[in-house]
Amino acid sequence: MKTLISGGTIVTASDTYKADLLVEDGKVSMIAGRIPVEADQRIDATGKYVLPGGIDAHTHLDMPFGGTVSSDDFETGTIAAAYGGTTTLVDFAIQQKGETLRKGLDTWHAKAEGKAAIDYGFHMIVTDLPPSVEEEMGALVREGVTSFKLFMAYPGVLLLDDASIFRAMLRAGELGALICMHAEAGLPIDVLVKRAQARGERAPKYHALTRPARAEAEGTNRALALAEMAGVPVYIVHLSAAEALERVMEARDRGLPAYAETCPQYLFCSQDDLAREGFEGAKYVCTPPLRPQSHHDHLWRGLKLNDLQVVSTDHCPFCVKGQKDLGRDDFAKIPNGMPGIETRLYLLWEGVRDGRISMNRFVEITATAPAKLFGLYPKKGTIAVGTDADLVVWDSNHEHVLSQKTLHMRVDYSPYEGRKVVGAPAAVLSRGELIVQGGKFLGRPGRGRFLKRGTFAL
Amino acid sequence: MKTLISGGTIVTASDTYKADLLVEDGKVSMIAGRIPVEADQRIDATGKYVLPGGIDAHTHLDMPFGGTVSSDDFETGTIAAAYGGTTTLVDFAIQQKGETLRKGLDTWHAKAEGKAAIDYGFHMIVTDLPPSVEEEMGALVREGVTSFKLFMAYPGVLLLDDASIFRAMLRAGELGALICMHAEAGLPIDVLVKRAQARGERAPKYHALTRPARAEAEGTNRALALAEMAGVPVYIVHLSAAEALERVMEARDRGLPAYAETCPQYLFCSQDDLAREGFEGAKYVCTPPLRPQSHHDHLWRGLKLNDLQVVSTDHCPFCVKGQKDLGRDDFAKIPNGMPGIETRLYLLWEGVRDGRISMNRFVEITATAPAKLFGLYPKKGTIAVGTDADLVVWDSNHEHVLSQKTLHMRVDYSPYEGRKVVGAPAAVLSRGELIVQGGKFLGRPGRGRFLKRGTFAL
Amino acid sequence: MKTLISGGTIVTASDTYKADLLVEDGKVSMIAGRIPVEADQRIDATGKYVLPGGIDAHTHLDMPFGGTVSSDDFETGTIAAAYGGTTTLVDFAIQQKGETLRKGLDTWHAKAEGKAAIDYGFHMIVTDLPPSVEEEMGALVREGVTSFKLFMAYPGVLLLDDASIFRAMLRAGELGALICMHAEAGLPIDVLVKRAQARGERAPKYHALTRPARAEAEGTNRALALAEMAGVPVYIVHLSAAEALERVMEARDRGLPAYAETCPQYLFCSQDDLAREGFEGAKYVCTPPLRPQSHHDHLWRGLKLNDLQVVSTDHCPFCVKGQKDLGRDDFAKIPNGMPGIETRLYLLWEGVRDGRISMNRFVEITATAPAKLFGLYPKKGTIAVGTDADLVVWDSNHEHVLSQKTLHMRVDYSPYEGRKVVGAPAAVLSRGELIVQGGKFLGRPGRGRFLKRGTFAL
Amino acid sequence: MKTLISGGTIVTASDTYKADLLVEDGKVSMIAGRIPVEADQRIDATGKYVLPGGIDAHTHLDMPFGGTVSSDDFETGTIAAAYGGTTTLVDFAIQQKGETLRKGLDTWHAKAEGKAAIDYGFHMIVTDLPPSVEEEMGALVREGVTSFKLFMAYPGVLLLDDASIFRAMLRAGELGALICMHAEAGLPIDVLVKRAQARGERAPKYHALTRPARAEAEGTNRALALAEMAGVPVYIVHLSAAEALERVMEARDRGLPAYAETCPQYLFCSQDDLAREGFEGAKYVCTPPLRPQSHHDHLWRGLKLNDLQVVSTDHCPFCVKGQKDLGRDDFAKIPNGMPGIETRLYLLWEGVRDGRISMNRFVEITATAPAKLFGLYPKKGTIAVGTDADLVVWDSNHEHVLSQKTLHMRVDYSPYEGRKVVGAPAAVLSRGELIVQGGKFLGRPGRGRFLKRGTFAL
Repeated sequence: MKTLISGGTIVTASDTYKADLLVEDGKVSMIAGRIPVEADQRIDATGKYVLPGGIDAHTHLDMPFGGTVSSDDFETGTIAAAYGGTTTLVDFAIQQKGETLRKGLDTWHAKAEGKAAIDYGFHMIVTDLPPSVEEEMGALVREGVTSFKLFMAYPGVLLLDDASIFRAMLRAGELGALICMHAEAGLPIDVLVKRAQARGERAPKYHALTRPARAEAEGTNRALALAEMAGVPVYIVHLSAAEALERVMEARDRGLPAYAETCPQYLFCSQDDLAREGFEGAKYVCTPPLRPQSHHDHLWRGLKLNDLQVVSTDHCPFCVKGQKDLGRDDFAKIPNGMPGIETRLYLLWEGVRDGRISMNRFVEITATAPAKLFGLYPKKGTIAVGTDADLVVWDSNHEHVLSQKTLHMRVDYSPYEGRKVVGAPAAVLSRGELIVQGGKFLGRPGRGRFLKRGTFAL
Repeated sequence: MKTLISGGTIVTASDTYKADLLVEDGKVSMIAGRIPVEADQRIDATGKYVLPGGIDAHTHLDMPFGGTVSSDDFETGTIAAAYGGTTTLVDFAIQQKGETLRKGLDTWHAKAEGKAAIDYGFHMIVTDLPPSVEEEMGALVREGVTSFKLFMAYPGVLLLDDASIFRAMLRAGELGALICMHAEAGLPIDVLVKRAQARGERAPKYHALTRPARAEAEGTNRALALAEMAGVPVYIVHLSAAEALERVMEARDRGLPAYAETCPQYLFCSQDDLAREGFEGAKYVCTPPLRPQSHHDHLWRGLKLNDLQVVSTDHCPFCVKGQKDLGRDDFAKIPNGMPGIETRLYLLWEGVRDGRISMNRFVEITATAPAKLFGLYPKKGTIAVGTDADLVVWDSNHEHVLSQKTLHMRVDYSPYEGRKVVGAPAAVLSRGELIVQGGKFLGRPGRGRFLKRGTFAL
Repeated sequence: MKTLISGGTIVTASDTYKADLLVEDGKVSMIAGRIPVEADQRIDATGKYVLPGGIDAHTHLDMPFGGTVSSDDFETGTIAAAYGGTTTLVDFAIQQKGETLRKGLDTWHAKAEGKAAIDYGFHMIVTDLPPSVEEEMGALVREGVTSFKLFMAYPGVLLLDDASIFRAMLRAGELGALICMHAEAGLPIDVLVKRAQARGERAPKYHALTRPARAEAEGTNRALALAEMAGVPVYIVHLSAAEALERVMEARDRGLPAYAETCPQYLFCSQDDLAREGFEGAKYVCTPPLRPQSHHDHLWRGLKLNDLQVVSTDHCPFCVKGQKDLGRDDFAKIPNGMPGIETRLYLLWEGVRDGRISMNRFVEITATAPAKLFGLYPKKGTIAVGTDADLVVWDSNHEHVLSQKTLHMRVDYSPYEGRKVVGAPAAVLSRGELIVQGGKFLGRPGRGRFLKRGTFAL
Repeated sequence: MKTLISGGTIVTASDTYKADLLVEDGKVSMIAGRIPVEADQRIDATGKYVLPGGIDAHTHLDMPFGGTVSSDDFETGTIAAAYGGTTTLVDFAIQQKGETLRKGLDTWHAKAEGKAAIDYGFHMIVTDLPPSVEEEMGALVREGVTSFKLFMAYPGVLLLDDASIFRAMLRAGELGALICMHAEAGLPIDVLVKRAQARGERAPKYHALTRPARAEAEGTNRALALAEMAGVPVYIVHLSAAEALERVMEARDRGLPAYAETCPQYLFCSQDDLAREGFEGAKYVCTPPLRPQSHHDHLWRGLKLNDLQVVSTDHCPFCVKGQKDLGRDDFAKIPNGMPGIETRLYLLWEGVRDGRISMNRFVEITATAPAKLFGLYPKKGTIAVGTDADLVVWDSNHEHVLSQKTLHMRVDYSPYEGRKVVGAPAAVLSRGELIVQGGKFLGRPGRGRFLKRGTFAL
């Protein structure tokens, strides 16, 4: 099976050049000025860009949370991802307190198998760390689950104490695994939430007011300090606040292996959205909360200069009806999360159009950097001879309006409803297979494969 | 009863000038170029400085710790303090876990009454914070116990979790009380200690190696962040590391009410002392641990420029014989603490002689600043008409050698054994009463009074 | 001649206490709770504060500038100063290019003698530095002119090149003199001004737009760097911008002897005033220019935390009529300067009332710190036995409205017209002589004495 | 003419992958897993890396300086460059004071034509900026000379005053040209040099002692501030000091388009070399001077994290005999400069071997980044279909010892004499032509072409 993509402009994290590209056996086999070959399938990319398929390193599909379950499963979620140009994701398997990692991982394998339309890996969320689980971490790494996520927030549910966090870090160091940290001062936040509840503060905006930026900066600093003491790298997930970014910058400036991602909602939405009239703000409840608009420029600058390495989505959708409205009388009961798996590239391309980041940097933060950080490179994350042919033919002139009606995520609203964007995938290939073209999904559920990831190698 | 101190040079935090000083009824009543009065008692201060009596805001007398009790009680400790020119101290009463603050405070009142030779106040250590204890904090403030110390270290014994710390801060804010923080990442430190023990690392130097500077910086940052979130001032006790100082500087540079003290041992001793041959290092085990000598310049600069406001002693003496040697086979069992209540002014005066700080700054960090921070000003902490006549006539030409044999603390060693110092009290007055003169203690145990302190007013 | 000030509350940079104060032979001779003495003159200070007389370390009286002369001479200016509670000033003598320092100094002595109503010293402005002038610097220091001001701005008029600045610093280091720096990137600013003129930009606001904050930060950094290379202290005059303050903070944080003053106009006026309708903005043309209001908080924080040590006035008044209006058609021809010698204490007291600084800090920045920095201490700058009785009895309840009509400076407008202030001198003494009382000037021109200042001693 | 490079591992700034590479008409025409083509020339790269040819953006060939001329001309220098894997250089044409840019540029064209063995471009050094020269800058940009270098050092020879620098920046902004800055506080340095000479300080080490790191930091800060005021990007050449790097970091952290290069001598030599016995230190005299070894880690970290973007050589060789020894009696007469055009890649590869930088980053700082910064990309600086086939086949196992005897620069010493390095070019291609193989130069003088560079596009 040979597929020829001709006439396009290939964009990698470093380079931009016109060339034809040949795919054989699911891999990029040749790049040349003109490839005069008999192909089984031809895609004309003239006037378009050829990008590596997006990698979304932070999704929560089919995840139980706050008495409900995130509304996309591995079928609907991965199809929506594909529509938006994302061809790989790394979702989070969860260890239940008191149980093994294995059991949590098995559960997530079962959720994904037969459903996923694109390739996927797993991070493992550790919520409990007896010595037996420290031991188990090794087994998971050997199976390609090479990153562990820990929570400094959600006491009683997900929060891990600092001693356990530190032990997990030391263990990750032995294994070459990467620690991903939800960095917020969870215990004091809990005090603030309870006091707000006691005062009768119920509106969605109190979600932000009880989780101040300083609380995120504190958690971030703590995560960085513990990683420094343990001598290991650390990756801060969903960084939202300028104050937290400053801590990451300071650590990096001292030469520490500190990494961080942000998400589109922190670049395009703000605390003002949380304060929308009535219960509208509930659509924008995620954690860490949206920050004032003044933070946006800091995050964009961080993305441009590599103080932030990745943009992932933290896709964790809940419908307003039946889910978000669990918290109609109490902001603290609103399920935390926003949909985003499909709209990441649309939104970030706005950053390219505004001159905030270059096209090469767009590719780097959406594909190359997550691939390198999470042990998927060089199989995924770039366009070069020998890599998986996960490709997006990007039509930078395509204009459309984001709307829940036309997006494919299984959720009853879009935070970006009505926003005009320019640029969209004309075609999406996964391992050489054309899975999206002309706004149609051509793949099938279950075709996605589990990715055994390598250990941390930066 | 009138006492005339004539011919001296009075030094305050701001000023230096020659004048006679008259004391009546225990208070400074007159300052003038020459006071031609019939005095009951005359002290010739010609060629000497007249300084406010020292205030030591951090002592641990008669304190149970690690299966033993600090070796100075309120009698021996306060007499030693007086010898060294300190006329006021603030000691730490301890709440036992599960008990009331009241009970802890009563215990400490009982320890001090009838014994203290100089005036004293109490901070209250909170180790447990159910709502009833939050309530009790108010009662203590009304009785003049206006500062509360919390521990981020010593899990299982003194450590308070971040939620309780935050609640204590919010409550202190309501009461105008000041939170004093032992700021170290106690839980990760505990992991490091246990791993060192498991590896058979036993020598005193491992005390420092398991409590890295970054752990102190982390605790300091956390304390500052929580205080910022609570909107309250915070006072970091016994800051030892340049990295922690940086955090305090950064907070102050943002205009936050952040304060910190250091102690003479962090200015004059170093990690090298901990690594002395055999068990000698045990004499230098205190927490936070001594740091490499490179930190000294940073601390002195901080003192000079008011990034550090106070030098107190953290006096917590343990004899080598029978106490320190509990840890002969395990550094973690060495009682933490060093003697220092008597030697503070001797050592800091070296800083004056070396040009590191001015005489005025010496007065400020040893007396005026702690008085203002802890609600003792203007009764204590300066020399002005109306203040308590707690005075030191300081002979800046007096040379002597520090030695356990000639010092008066009840402990079987001196960390400064053999060190020559220049400058010593020729006379010490407490509320006008001459309690030290010519190297003799003239006061009596029990003359010291409990000080009801005011709330935080800076 | 004995003067008794009774019942007041004495405020120094460190202390606040109630006491009577006796003045004999122009000096403070006694401070006591009650002084039952036969005085020649009695001032009842009950309910009032007794402060050290203000020291204004930056004035330009009778100064030729831009084809005109500042409108206050040493008579009108010093009387206005006295009305406002300032009892000492340090004015700037100017060396004309190509001439000796001596000649400039003689000129200024002639301007002041017989006119000054309060004591005064001189800084010397160096505009030209051949070796003979380096030599002359020594003579001036011996005569008590112990600080030299250099300009990085005003090319062709006052600007000194970096080689000369550096040689002046090295020479000052030998002499114990202090370099005061007008720190702005003068040459690039000149380019901006000429381009603005060429574009026909004429309004006063272009004064600020052609002298951006970054230009001040650059000059400040350069001054600090050169002083560091020369191993000498440096004092930045009239710091106006947060960016420049950051540079000073950074230098101080590295332990360098860097000092800076700001002025009331930078704390109370803003770039918006420059943009007032018509030619109104001309009243607010001074250099460095007024900055956006967002800078105010930074400067106040700097004053509180001693990153800024002094507030002086840079008093350099020009009438609108006949002076400011020289620049009606060209902002660059508006004489640079604002009146302020009389209103400094009124305005800064607002900072005390708003809780931005304490009373003690008010005293320090208006009197004690300039006295110490400029070799006037302990004769001037504080209240202690033996100091000159330069005193202000401050009525903190006195309300009035600032207005050109009631102020005493010889200038036809007030930048603060209509502003209500609370707090004013009830009485002002200079060397024990009552020179202002009940809003009347009781002194006489010519009574002020030239002050031989000591060398830099901090 | 077809050349096939088979079996190698291609390395770009972003990617590393095994592939064959076909060159046609001097350009890369195809990259594929295996290219079964009839090639005119085959290079077996099995087990080797295929890298983009090095770009040296800072050389001084045939340059008059200090009464002599740099010892390599465009023939010897470019051949030496080729031996070391560098296939493009950008040299500096010099405007003589009072003359046109054109004349300077013509002179340099004449020096290069017929001699250069590799492709080359020119930066233009501006030493004098009347309006006519501002005008001329436009003509040069149109001819592909799109960067201008200015000096803050060497007063009287090369130094440009701050007004001219600022005007040049504004003009560059209009033209899309890039300003390259020699950033040192030249005037104060001159004072220090003269004072050292007057004290009889003659040894080479005084070169460093009279040009302190703070002087470089000052110049760097000034360059950055002026560029910020002008709203243009700026590129700091030969950054040597940690203090200067801090300034660049600070500017970048504020989002400014600030760029900087360092050179191998600042990473591998130190102030200690300048202090070598006798006149040995003269071999290490370059400007800015070598710094203490403690700076190395900062520079490496800066390279790793993109605070420094480029490593160029500042190749400016002078023989000890007849050139360096002009300064035998006076360090200030030693011609400033070190040889390095040939050894850059050898040395930097040590950084790869030590784990200080990745291979991708090696490619980026030696080729891709200078190509992008100086308008040579995508023709030069990477390996992609369509780019010039400037390629290095790098044998990472080749060990040899650096020595003047075996290196090819026309200079009588090597600063790295005796240093063992691992890694060397097995083959070097320039526009597809094999110019070095098996340690033999196969090209010819004069084959190098002048490169019309594009304007600044980052």
